[in-house]
Amino acid sequence: MTDTIDRRALLTLGALLAASAAVPDFANAETLEEHMRSMMEIPKDAPKVAMLIYPKMVALDLIGPMTVFTLMRFDVQLVWKDKTPVSTDVRIPFTATQTFDECPKDLDVLFVPGGILGTVDCMNDLDVCAFLADRGSRAKWVTSVCTGGLIIAAAGLLKGYDATAYWPVADLLPLMGARHVDKRVVRDRNRMTGGGVTAGIDFALTLAAEMRGEEAARRAQLIIEYSPEPPFANGTPREAGPERVAATLERRKGMDGRARVAAEAAGKRLGI
Amino acid sequence: MTDTIDRRALLTLGALLAASAAVPDFANAETLEEHMRSMMEIPKDAPKVAMLIYPKMVALDLIGPMTVFTLMRFDVQLVWKDKTPVSTDVRIPFTATQTFDECPKDLDVLFVPGGILGTVDCMNDLDVCAFLADRGSRAKWVTSVCTGGLIIAAAGLLKGYDATAYWPVADLLPLMGARHVDKRVVRDRNRMTGGGVTAGIDFALTLAAEMRGEEAARRAQLIIEYSPEPPFANGTPREAGPERVAATLERRKGMDGRARVAAEAAGKRLGI
Repeated sequence: MTDTIDRRALLTLGALLAASAAVPDFANAETLEEHMRSMMEIPKDAPKVAMLIYPKMVALDLIGPMTVFTLMRFDVQLVWKDKTPVSTDVRIPFTATQTFDECPKDLDVLFVPGGILGTVDCMNDLDVCAFLADRGSRAKWVTSVCTGGLIIAAAGLLKGYDATAYWPVADLLPLMGARHVDKRVVRDRNRMTGGGVTAGIDFALTLAAEMRGEEAARRAQLIIEYSPEPPFANGTPREAGPERVAATLERRKGMDGRARVAAEAAGKRLGI
Repeated sequence: MTDTIDRRALLTLGALLAASAAVPDFANAETLEEHMRSMMEIPKDAPKVAMLIYPKMVALDLIGPMTVFTLMRFDVQLVWKDKTPVSTDVRIPFTATQTFDECPKDLDVLFVPGGILGTVDCMNDLDVCAFLADRGSRAKWVTSVCTGGLIIAAAGLLKGYDATAYWPVADLLPLMGARHVDKRVVRDRNRMTGGGVTAGIDFALTLAAEMRGEEAARRAQLIIEYSPEPPFANGTPREAGPERVAATLERRKGMDGRARVAAEAAGKRLGI
C-alpha cells in the first residue's frame, strides 16, 4: 500500500515539477509519464528539510510551506516521535516519514507548524524540546509558522532573536527570550518565523528566495498563482479593529492561558 | 485507530472553533477540554459540503478551502470512488470519508480541487463526471479551484456560465461551454470558481461571506491571519511577464496538451 501511494505521489510530484524545470516538450504519452517519474526524483544534494508534525496541529500551517518546498525539489520529511497518524484541525491525519531517531543530525531546514492545544503539549514536552534543541543547534535554518514559534522558543531556539508568531499569542515570545517583531515574516540571522496560518506561504517563498535565489522563488510563486486578493481587509488585529480582536481574544482565554503557563515554565527552564 | 484520531481531531477542531464562537472563558482545565469537545460538534443544520479528492491532486487546493469551511463549522466530507488513500503532490495521502454512493444526494456545496494529470484522468472518467453532474444538478453551490474548474466543466456544470481556472489551462474552459473571465474568483449565479492553488483561500472566504454573511467571513479571516504579503509581484502571468510565462508554458506542454484533448472530448460529449 505504502509503495503504491509513493509511486502515485511520484507521478504527481513529477507533473508539478515539470512546470518548474527546464525540460523539453513531450508529445508522446509514455514519454511524458517517464519524464514525470524522472523529474520527481529528489536530487541527491537537495536541502534536507525536517517538518515537525504533532497531534492537534493546524494542517494549513504545514501544507502551505510544504507545497513550496516540494516545488523547490527539497528533500522534505515529516518528523514525529513515532509513525502513529497525528490529528489535524481539518481531520485529515498526517503520518511521520521519519521518527526523531531517524531524522538526520544535520538539517538544512528545521520547521515547526502551529496548533493551539497541540502547541501547548509540545511546549511542555521535554522530549520534543530536546529533539528540536539538538537539531536546531546545527540546522542551517530554524523556522516556524503560527504558534509553532512558541514551540521553537520553548526549545530555547529563539533566545536573543527577533521573531514573530500567531497574533493572539505573539506576546508570549519574550517570556522565552525572543524579541517580538510585529511583521508577517521575521528573519534574524538563521531564524525565520512567520505569523499565523496563511503566513506560511509568504514565509516559504521568502525562505525559498534566500536559499535558491529570487528567480526560483518567483517561478514557484507563478506556479501556485500567488497573487492574493482577500475579500476583506481583516487579516490582522489592526485591520480587524479593537472590537473583533477583543471578542476573539475573549473566546481564546482558556487556550492562551495555558500557552502562557507553558511559556513561563519554558522561560524558567531557559533561565530567563 | 480511526476512533482515536477522530476524537483527537475533535479536540483540535474545538480549539479552533472556540476562537470563532461566542463562548464563556474557561479557567478550569477540564472544563476547557469539555468545552472544546462540545464546540467541535457539527451543528445538525450545518451546510453539507462534499469535496472531491482524487489521485494526483494538489493538497493545497483542498486544504485552503477546507480550513475555512471547518472554521465555519460546515459538515465537510471528502468524497471519492472508494476509501483507498489517494496521492497528493506533497506525498501526504488523503482518504475519502464518503464514497460516491454514500455522498448525500442534496448538497449545499460541491467542490473540486485541481491536480494536473489527476485532473485529466477525472475529465476522461465518465463515472466521475456522472457523479459530479448528478450532485451538481441539485447542489446549492457548484465550486472549484485551480484545474478543478476543468473537471466540473467536463461534467457539463459550467455550460453557459462565467468561470475561471488555473492560468495555464483556463483557455480550455470555452471548449466545454464556459466563458473564461480573467479574475481570481468568479461567481455566476450558483457557480463559484477560483484561480490556481492559493486562490482557494480567497475563494473560500468569498463563499463563506455569501453563505454566512460578511461578519462571519471576516472572523475566519482574522483567525487564519490572512493579510498576505507575497515577497514578489509574480503570482499572475501579467505580473510575471511574458518571458517567465512562456518558459512555464513550454515546460507544461505535455500536460496541457493532454488537458486540451480531454477538454475537446468533453466538449463533444456536451454537444459544444
